Amino acid sequence: MGSSANGDRTASSNGVSVDRGVDFANYFCTYGFLYHQKEMLCDRVRMDAYFNAIFENKEHFHGKTVLDVGTGSGILAIWSAKAGAKKVYAVEATKMSDHARELVKANNLQDVVEVIEGSMEDVTLPEKGYLTSNLVTLVLGVFLGRFIMIEITFHNIMCVMAFPKSSGFVRYPSHARMWVAPIRSGLGDQKTSDYESSIHDWECFLNETKTYYGVDMSVLTKPFCEEQRKYYLQTSLWNNLHPHQVIGIPAIIKEIDCLTVSVSEILNVRADVSSSITVEKTFLCGFAGWFDVHFRGSRENPARNEIELTTAPSVDNGTHWGQQVFLLHPPLRVSEGDVMAVSFSMNRSKENHRLLEVDLGCEARQSSGKHLRPFNQRFYLE
Amino acid sequence: MGSSANGDRTASSNGVSVDRGVDFANYFCTYGFLYHQKEMLCDRVRMDAYFNAIFENKEHFHGKTVLDVGTGSGILAIWSAKAGAKKVYAVEATKMSDHARELVKANNLQDVVEVIEGSMEDVTLPEKGYLTSNLVTLVLGVFLGRFIMIEITFHNIMCVMAFPKSSGFVRYPSHARMWVAPIRSGLGDQKTSDYESSIHDWECFLNETKTYYGVDMSVLTKPFCEEQRKYYLQTSLWNNLHPHQVIGIPAIIKEIDCLTVSVSEILNVRADVSSSITVEKTFLCGFAGWFDVHFRGSRENPARNEIELTTAPSVDNGTHWGQQVFLLHPPLRVSEGDVMAVSFSMNRSKENHRLLEVDLGCEARQSSGKHLRPFNQRFYLE
Repeated sequence: MGSSANGDRTASSNGVSVDRGVDFANYFCTYGFLYHQKEMLCDRVRMDAYFNAIFENKEHFHGKTVLDVGTGSGILAIWSAKAGAKKVYAVEATKMSDHARELVKANNLQDVVEVIEGSMEDVTLPEKGYLTSNLVTLVLGVFLGRFIMIEITFHNIMCVMAFPKSSGFVRYPSHARMWVAPIRSGLGDQKTSDYESSIHDWECFLNETKTYYGVDMSVLTKPFCEEQRKYYLQTSLWNNLHPHQVIGIPAIIKEIDCLTVSVSEILNVRADVSSSITVEKTFLCGFAGWFDVHFRGSRENPARNEIELTTAPSVDNGTHWGQQVFLLHPPLRVSEGDVMAVSFSMNRSKENHRLLEVDLGCEARQSSGKHLRPFNQRFYLE
Repeated sequence: MGSSANGDRTASSNGVSVDRGVDFANYFCTYGFLYHQKEMLCDRVRMDAYFNAIFENKEHFHGKTVLDVGTGSGILAIWSAKAGAKKVYAVEATKMSDHARELVKANNLQDVVEVIEGSMEDVTLPEKGYLTSNLVTLVLGVFLGRFIMIEITFHNIMCVMAFPKSSGFVRYPSHARMWVAPIRSGLGDQKTSDYESSIHDWECFLNETKTYYGVDMSVLTKPFCEEQRKYYLQTSLWNNLHPHQVIGIPAIIKEIDCLTVSVSEILNVRADVSSSITVEKTFLCGFAGWFDVHFRGSRENPARNEIELTTAPSVDNGTHWGQQVFLLHPPLRVSEGDVMAVSFSMNRSKENHRLLEVDLGCEARQSSGKHLRPFNQRFYLE
């Protein structure tokens, strides 16, 4: 790729090299549209959680300086101001900042909310000394990507991490957890069938190219199959699952304290967990991953009313984050009481730090003691 | 956007600034997949044209040095070798170069075809002095984007243009033309309806945000409508039209001689043309644009058999390029004999040189002499 030779690269602590130009162009283009902002603002589960977290814990905002990282349309900054903040700095990297400024003005909060266009790394906050003191609340709206880790702004995290971990420095949210659970789903059959038909197409294509144009392309069959396999069978999918599709006990693979978390903790997630199947005679079609976050304040300044925001499968309270699905090909017959020993490892791709690679292994032991076919698969998330 | 501050920018002659890192990442990711190569290789109209152009004009290849710009899977380089080329340099910017090299080897042509990974700007050709002499044929497979101008590799063109315009330096293809024609289509109604329903959704969203979260977002209605208008009504669409949908005489808006064309000619296309309606009592729903190319060799070295490749609407000979559609909202009643005076202007976006902006104006005069509502619209192409 040309970018590796020519981009402006920044080396990070874990050796993942980041081209800022590419990074910003790919990431921020999405968040520059009001349509996308609207999608997030229509997520009632997300909105209610932040709304309640702020207004049921006004003491973390009243008279405080608030820093809203990735303010988007500015809604969280406006709520912070309405909850009594003395000053709100709302930082936004895209041109959405212009809209946020308009919205602040239309709501007559321009004396409290200051919208600043730029990434956290680049902006100079008017009272940086003040911000690093103990009187600050940090609102992390944009902090959460799908499965927490997908789409998150690497640079913003780096910068937020750099803020002092003093006890008064409350973060909203304060804690996060990542979950996995065994699931059943018809998606796997669909993907297998798509994969098989793409391979069949390729065989026809080889014949035609040989017959009509005199070129034997069969040497490319292996890399083509690998490419298609990766695309159809090894790419993790976004999905909104029904709770009935979860067939075992969900397990926590990562707990994050937003006050003390380090960058390396976020870059690599590793866990060995176990999950018992809770449904009789079914198929293990794969695993689903999701997250929840809590607004607890800090140990010294606990929230009066702790709020939870979960993205678990739900009939009535689904979120725009949905769940991340990792499919098994073919599915495995399992039944109630079988125990899944799951090893989960998530790393950032060396080529593009926004892409994640998950290695998921599973060994199932039936209640009779019999071991089922073990399973090990790499997945790609974008 | 962070990229403007941090990317490695190259200023070009027309003042459009290009961030190479972003550019390469966005462009070349598509062409790095065999799936996409297969899509192009399955386009029988494209394949037949290049195949016939090469094998019916072997004298332009036999004993010659050939430079294949953007070789992809390597098929045009292989054909050039089979047509008797002494040496073929096949330049490819993506990792597809590895597959091309394998394919060359599997077809036992590794002594003739040398695959070089890199962009035209960066690679050092082993015999550059030789290449700039008169004994070279230049194969421009990747040269053609949708409507010619979309997706083309700016840097490659810059480099190809830099080759001396000596008369023996034959280009394949040698000539290209861009066309527009008045069309009828149901797509416009669909897009208008999509636009209207997105605006209706927005009104509901405003109400909910005001009621539940106490924030009046109506100040964003105007920019939201503009954004949606641009997306639904002002974005040019890819389409494969039926010839019956063309309701007037196609007009040429640009003729390109690939030997003498300059960069500025490609960056800005302007034309005033006229087209007569050929269908009685119908609706003018917009215009379609397409291109054709010819393999004619050069004046001093004309092709023995001139080959044409057209991407015009066709029942049996459609191509993967399709046509580019510019829709009118609402459509205009027209009839046989009405004359459309069309002004067409295409420029590269200042923000991203790969994005094109088209200003399309039309004044219709009925055969009775009466003038219809004039029409002027900006379109965005990506």
